[in-house]
Amino acid sequence: MDKLTIVKVGGKIVEEEDSLNQLINDFKSISGPKILVHGGGRSATAMAARLGVETQMVEGRRITDQSMLEVVTMVYGGLVNKRIVAKLQSKGCNAAGFTGADLSIITSVKRPVKEVDYGFVGDVIDVNTSELRMLIGEGVAPVIAPLTHDGKGQLLNTNADTMATELAIDLAKFYAVSLVFCFEKDGVLLNPDDERSVIRDLDKDLYLQYKSKGIISEGMIPKLDNAFKAFNSGVNMVLITNAKNLTKPSAVGTMIRR
Amino acid sequence: MDKLTIVKVGGKIVEEEDSLNQLINDFKSISGPKILVHGGGRSATAMAARLGVETQMVEGRRITDQSMLEVVTMVYGGLVNKRIVAKLQSKGCNAAGFTGADLSIITSVKRPVKEVDYGFVGDVIDVNTSELRMLIGEGVAPVIAPLTHDGKGQLLNTNADTMATELAIDLAKFYAVSLVFCFEKDGVLLNPDDERSVIRDLDKDLYLQYKSKGIISEGMIPKLDNAFKAFNSGVNMVLITNAKNLTKPSAVGTMIRR
Repeated sequence: MDKLTIVKVGGKIVEEEDSLNQLINDFKSISGPKILVHGGGRSATAMAARLGVETQMVEGRRITDQSMLEVVTMVYGGLVNKRIVAKLQSKGCNAAGFTGADLSIITSVKRPVKEVDYGFVGDVIDVNTSELRMLIGEGVAPVIAPLTHDGKGQLLNTNADTMATELAIDLAKFYAVSLVFCFEKDGVLLNPDDERSVIRDLDKDLYLQYKSKGIISEGMIPKLDNAFKAFNSGVNMVLITNAKNLTKPSAVGTMIRR
Repeated sequence: MDKLTIVKVGGKIVEEEDSLNQLINDFKSISGPKILVHGGGRSATAMAARLGVETQMVEGRRITDQSMLEVVTMVYGGLVNKRIVAKLQSKGCNAAGFTGADLSIITSVKRPVKEVDYGFVGDVIDVNTSELRMLIGEGVAPVIAPLTHDGKGQLLNTNADTMATELAIDLAKFYAVSLVFCFEKDGVLLNPDDERSVIRDLDKDLYLQYKSKGIISEGMIPKLDNAFKAFNSGVNMVLITNAKNLTKPSAVGTMIRR
């Protein structure tokens, strides 16, 4: 099986000029097939504020009403995605930007209303990578924005970590997939105040132990749940690390282990 | 040679719910390979106003400073493009949205400053349809937003008629291309106040004659210049018609003739 690297980067990295340029350089120098999945939450919040659209978050998740859906469609699918694509192209990396609606890559269902009405937020139900694999085979690097569709014409806001995970699981049927979650820390920290306290290796038992003791912070839990889901569904390697470590992924960060 | 239909639709059609839905239905029922190129000027102007960004036009062309570039990148590449894609997907048409930066489909150069500084506006210098043709061969319908890049990381605002024309000329090397410019009139009118005064057939001599007599309105001239350029560069059929006539293109509209 050929190797395929999927890099997920959070909003903060792609929204600041310096860290974005660094990321572009690092991403393009990854050898072999690769996909970039990006966020853009901070830009969406800033654009929403300029438009007088109120941002409401519940447990780190954005409530997406019609106005906010318009904002995230513009910001994720347009502004952030196309900036990354143009920059990658300038480095000789043949990037193509997509949302989950394009080529019907990711179909989702509007999240059912329970205690919280998240609005136009989609939970992934189907992944289609057939055209994506053809493009990857031609040397194209897909750049994926965190939006999906319901197959009935409705765009939905979808978590970028989840999209990267679902793509990795589907593509693991065809490639030896490495999934790298990048953020602004060197990995999952034992002590949030100590940047050097990176947990180097994390297996499920240790994760559950840390989680029950409250050692792993709330914000990391969805990311780690995704990481373990990917690892237990055929993805070869799952690493959580600093975007700065992208070109040396085996050297540092939190590696998911069996 | 296989047949390929390129449909260019103006902003007004894709920005109003009813005409957009009609267009989606008509476009998906075109048989064989097809590409949709869209505008979005009215939405961009409206979004710019909401953001306090002033819209300045010179001879129907948008002056695109940094703030306006942000707006058109969001609106054309995100909002308008992804809405069309999601709607086409819901009709079983495997659409994928692109700008000229994606797959480096269209490279342009920032328009030199002469009497007017148009800002971040791009004049097309190169067209690459290699991956696009592969996707078309797989039944994908590309949906193209009017943005290009300069190959150095800069996105540029580019006229949608021009993009449709340049795509048609390049693709004419591989397909028998029909290029259909859709707008809200039935064709080029002899008398702008009489909707029935459609010029059915227009050759270059007649065009120059009408132009010199001021019969053809200012706004139609760039469109017709594009139409003749395409027709004289290998495109099989060039038609200017009402979006409503899309499924009966040979029946009505202004047909460019030799």
